[in-house]
Amino acid sequence: MTINTIIDTLKREIDSYRFNHSLNVMETAEALARQYGADIHKARLAGILHDCGKNYKGEEARRFVKRIGYQAEEVEIRQPKLLHGIIGEYLAKEMYGVTDEEVLGAIRWHTTGKAGMNLLEKIIYIADYIEPLRSFDGIETMRRIAFEDLERCIVYCSESTIKFILKKGVLLHKNTVDTRNYSLMLIKDRNENI
Amino acid sequence: MTINTIIDTLKREIDSYRFNHSLNVMETAEALARQYGADIHKARLAGILHDCGKNYKGEEARRFVKRIGYQAEEVEIRQPKLLHGIIGEYLAKEMYGVTDEEVLGAIRWHTTGKAGMNLLEKIIYIADYIEPLRSFDGIETMRRIAFEDLERCIVYCSESTIKFILKKGVLLHKNTVDTRNYSLMLIKDRNENI
Repeated sequence: MTINTIIDTLKREIDSYRFNHSLNVMETAEALARQYGADIHKARLAGILHDCGKNYKGEEARRFVKRIGYQAEEVEIRQPKLLHGIIGEYLAKEMYGVTDEEVLGAIRWHTTGKAGMNLLEKIIYIADYIEPLRSFDGIETMRRIAFEDLERCIVYCSESTIKFILKKGVLLHKNTVDTRNYSLMLIKDRNENI
Repeated sequence: MTINTIIDTLKREIDSYRFNHSLNVMETAEALARQYGADIHKARLAGILHDCGKNYKGEEARRFVKRIGYQAEEVEIRQPKLLHGIIGEYLAKEMYGVTDEEVLGAIRWHTTGKAGMNLLEKIIYIADYIEPLRSFDGIETMRRIAFEDLERCIVYCSESTIKFILKKGVLLHKNTVDTRNYSLMLIKDRNENI
């Protein structure tokens, strides 16, 4: 499937807000890929498809991941929104014909991140936060840091998520904490080696 | 060893600030044990000894836990203060002759907490936060909730730690997040069953 066919298909599958957000993540991911020397095509592909699993909510999402053999954690069962990366990875492969493991990984991990993300996974994780439709406290700082220092931006994004989750009184996924810890460790090691 | 002998020994082993803090945690743990029907003697014993491992810092702490066969996580290796519960559990057993598994568990887990703490573990975790020497934003609320609702107090304490750690720019232990998530889930389940 060409990226244009994917865009046309996706437009019919998801609502217009989510579709516009996906187009924006695709463009932002491309800009970040240019900045950091990642594969432009993969960045666009992962960007446009990152939320393709978002139609499945609540019990439907729980049933979906069970059917494909994913062992959901209790936090994910209680907050099934956290499953849309797993569902998205599956749909990207089965419905949109994506075979590239890097693209699939970037879709899978974009919500929480994880310890030790590769360059494409980092780019999609960040692009999802900073695309032009996003608006929250600190977004301008986040957008600036994104093009200066990927690791610092990841710390900033994950901390923003942690604060938001504490404020909302919902469960915090441990991968979000791993994401922050890992980038923080990389920054500390880097600073020590200067 | 009687608790008075333990107190006399501990006084020689740790500095006066830490010793007074330990006495306070013992008294606060007793008050919480009375409130929630826990074993008073165990609460006092775990309270007085909870920080007995705190003399071991940095490389000494890392070497100590290696020697006793504890497999430290990277976050603990990088922030060896997080190891003083593990060291304390060992010293309580080997140096102070504590054999009660509940008391040992309460000493082991008091810093980060963990998912599914038992009553004594919860009491020591909270007593360590709210004892009279402690002073920080929100402490009065924390002290009040401690005697009203253990789970809500644990959420409050663990969130206070998470915010502090984000502000300090240091690594967040996943057990702190598990502690918060677990109590939050208990509260939600309780509210749904009303």
